[in-house]
Parts: sequence; structure tokens; C-alpha cells
Amino acid sequence: MQQYFIKGKAEKKVTITDKDTIKHMFQVMRLADEAEVVLVFDDGVKYLAKVTNSMAHELEIIEALPDQVELPVKVTIASGFPKGDKLDTIAQKVTELGASALWGYPADWSVVKWDGKKLAKKEDKLAKIVLGAAEQSKRNRVPEVHLFEHKAEFLKSLSSFDHIFIAYEETAKAGQLATLAREVKEVKPGAKILFIFGPEGGISPTEITQFEAASAIKVGLGPRIMRAETAPLYALSALSYALELQASK
Amino acid sequence: MQQYFIKGKAEKKVTITDKDTIKHMFQVMRLADEAEVVLVFDDGVKYLAKVTNSMAHELEIIEALPDQVELPVKVTIASGFPKGDKLDTIAQKVTELGASALWGYPADWSVVKWDGKKLAKKEDKLAKIVLGAAEQSKRNRVPEVHLFEHKAEFLKSLSSFDHIFIAYEETAKAGQLATLAREVKEVKPGAKILFIFGPEGGISPTEITQFEAASAIKVGLGPRIMRAETAPLYALSALSYALELQASK
Repeated sequence: MQQYFIKGKAEKKVTITDKDTIKHMFQVMRLADEAEVVLVFDDGVKYLAKVTNSMAHELEIIEALPDQVELPVKVTIASGFPKGDKLDTIAQKVTELGASALWGYPADWSVVKWDGKKLAKKEDKLAKIVLGAAEQSKRNRVPEVHLFEHKAEFLKSLSSFDHIFIAYEETAKAGQLATLAREVKEVKPGAKILFIFGPEGGISPTEITQFEAASAIKVGLGPRIMRAETAPLYALSALSYALELQASK
Repeated sequence: MQQYFIKGKAEKKVTITDKDTIKHMFQVMRLADEAEVVLVFDDGVKYLAKVTNSMAHELEIIEALPDQVELPVKVTIASGFPKGDKLDTIAQKVTELGASALWGYPADWSVVKWDGKKLAKKEDKLAKIVLGAAEQSKRNRVPEVHLFEHKAEFLKSLSSFDHIFIAYEETAKAGQLATLAREVKEVKPGAKILFIFGPEGGISPTEITQFEAASAIKVGLGPRIMRAETAPLYALSALSYALELQASK
């Protein structure tokens, strides 16, 4: 069943006001009166709802649904600005794989240089991709998107996490593959995890020092070399496997 | 350092005969005499080699390298033919993530219908993508690519695996998330694993019965709904995490 995220608190009677949502519901999907959809409000609860007046864009909630598909931890993926539209692909895929937030930061070795105006446009585009992907993968939450214009702001934000991991190729090359699995054992439900990835060129030694000063730990993601847009998918899949599949009875 | 796969057995003196490899080595990378590269032959061993005569495309092996980045199991990813160029993306990503082979099969709910001629062209294209990705991710082996024209041939091939898993959404919906982690515990080094994925529309009930008749087991890949091209990446990442990271000391 089609799912839509609606801003605000859940109320028995809902009038859709967001233009894109109205367009998708009543033009693309042509929902008629009595048609059923799933609505998700700011509290992340899914509600079964039916259209009561398609002309006035009105729906009524029938019941709350028990569906809860969020990861048991809050994972923020931070990517050093990669080239071209790679962040679009990353946004779609990390949403499917359960990320809580997607951040971008201007890494020392990012080839692209994006100013404030460009970043605002990018952020809007990514927010739309993330919303669509969250609806399609039936998430309870829409991941937050934020692109930092300056690395200093990104570094300041590091203090709000319980665990920070740096995906670092050299760690894998040195044969140190056990770190992530060992650290994941210490992760508690609800923990806030930040996973930092470099752009195509990797993470600079200065950045490693800066991240480590904020208690970040270097981890290897297996012995093979992954592209900048593949490594975040590995990280989220591994966390899901450890915390959802292995922890399940 | 640039890596190339060379067909045949490793010999002290190597003359490159493959046109694409010659072009990449001597036109794109402009390798001169004494330039060093890594060559990988059919045995999967990486060799450091240097150019001895760039005009005649001749190289000489200096030494074998200890690099071994293959997964400890042989994983074949089988995708029901998906729409458009999605198989291209899957080919690139599963190579980065360590697959031994990528297969495609005409699933009951595949929207696309590809005949023998189209399949041969597709297979050629995929083989090129896989080769490039294997070189970039520094694999020891190039994954095999095979597209089945008829499902019957695909079904016949199922007997050659030690474990067959069907990525099945309904298993996840039913809250049965523990199956894959439980099965992976039984997997022995060198085991041949087949992971079957449906096309966008999923796997038909008939297919489930056919696969189960070949001892396939339905597994859930977490509670979120993933696109046809994302699920194989989850599976390979999870296997790498379990068998390379968690098993590492």
C-alpha cells in the first residue's frame, strides 16, 4: 500500500496541504474516496487512513499500525563531497538501508567545491530523493539531510555521537579487520553512531587526526577496495546484520 | 598501482595480446619501459611486473605478492532480470563486494523479455563492467557472468551449490529475521553459496516451490524494503561482515 509522510502531529481528520503529496495522491495515484493509504506523521507511527473527500484532499485515520522497521540504533552517514551526482545514489541507498541522517562535508581531498548557494540546491534535491526512498522502503522516519559548507561546523557536530567510526582503507590493508565487529558489540540500543567516509581520494592524515581527537575509531570494511558510494552501503548492511538479524531470536 | 587481469598461466616473460588491455596500458596509462604494474593470471595470484618493452607490449614478472582479498566463500548472485540497466549497477557493485559470479535468469515476474541475441550482447557488456570493477577493487579473481535464457537451465544449475538462499521479503515481514545469521554459522570455508533475488516484482510462489525443491532456504534481509539492485549488496556485505570481520582476530 502507498505510504506518505505528513508533517505534523497525527489527528483523526487530516487535510493534505503539501503540493507534491497532493499531486502524487490525487493525480499520479488517482486516489478516490474510500481509497486506503498509510500516513506517517512526525512521531514515526504508521496509520492506516482512507480518503474521505478526494476533492478537498481530506483523509481520516482508521487505525495505528504496528509496523516498525527502523534500525535499533541511529546511524548518520557522513560522506566527503564526492564528484557529480554520486551523493544522489548514496542518499537513495542509505535511506533504503536504514540511515537516520545523511551528511556531506567538504573533505580535504574532495575534488568538487560547492558554495552555499549550490549546497542549498543540492540539499533540496537530496531531501526529495530521501523522502521518496523512505516512502518506497516503508520507513517510519525520513532521514535528515545536511550538507556542511565548512569543515569546522562538521567537526563541531562530532561531539553529539556515542560512537564515531572512520571507514579507512589503510586499516583494512594492515589486516586489522576485527575492529568494527568488536566495537559493534559495545553498541547499545538507541545509540547515536556516526560513520565517516572520505571522497574518492580518501581521508587526509589531518582529517584522521581531527576525527580521532573527537574519539573516532578507524575501522576496515573488509579487504576489498570499495568506491566512495559503495562503502556506506556496506556499513549499514553490516550494522543491520549484526543488530537486526544476528540479535533476532 | 594499476592492476590488470591477464588470461592464461603466469610466466616470467609476458606479452600482452588483449587489445583492450594494450590500449589501457600503453595509450590510456602511457606505461613506459620500467613502469610497474600488478598482473593477475588465471591462478588468482597477484604479481608485481615491470614493462620491459612498451613498443612490443612486453613485461617481466618481478615477484608474487601476498595480497589475497577474496571472500572465504564463493558467492554467486542470481538476479531475476530487472528493468533497464540495473544489472549493470548490480554487476559493478557485487564485484566490489566480492561476488564469485553474477547470474541473471528470466523470472516469472521479470517485466523485460530478453532473447538469445540480446542476452549475448548484455553478457558481453556485463563482462566488461565486471572486469573493470575487479581491477579497480583489486580482486584476485574476475567474477563469472552468465545470463540464462531459460529458467529450466537455471534450475538445473542449483544442484552445484552447498547453500542456496532466497532473499524473500515476506520472510522479513513475518518477523523471521534470524534465519540468515543462523545458516551462516554452518557455512564452511570454500563453501559454494547461491543467493537468489527476484526482479522488481519479486519472486513468484511457483519459483519459491522450485527453489525450495533444490534445498533453497528463504531468508529475510532486515525489515526494510529494498530495491532489486540493493538487496544483493546487503547480502554480500552481511557475508563479508560475518566471515571476514567477525571471524577475524
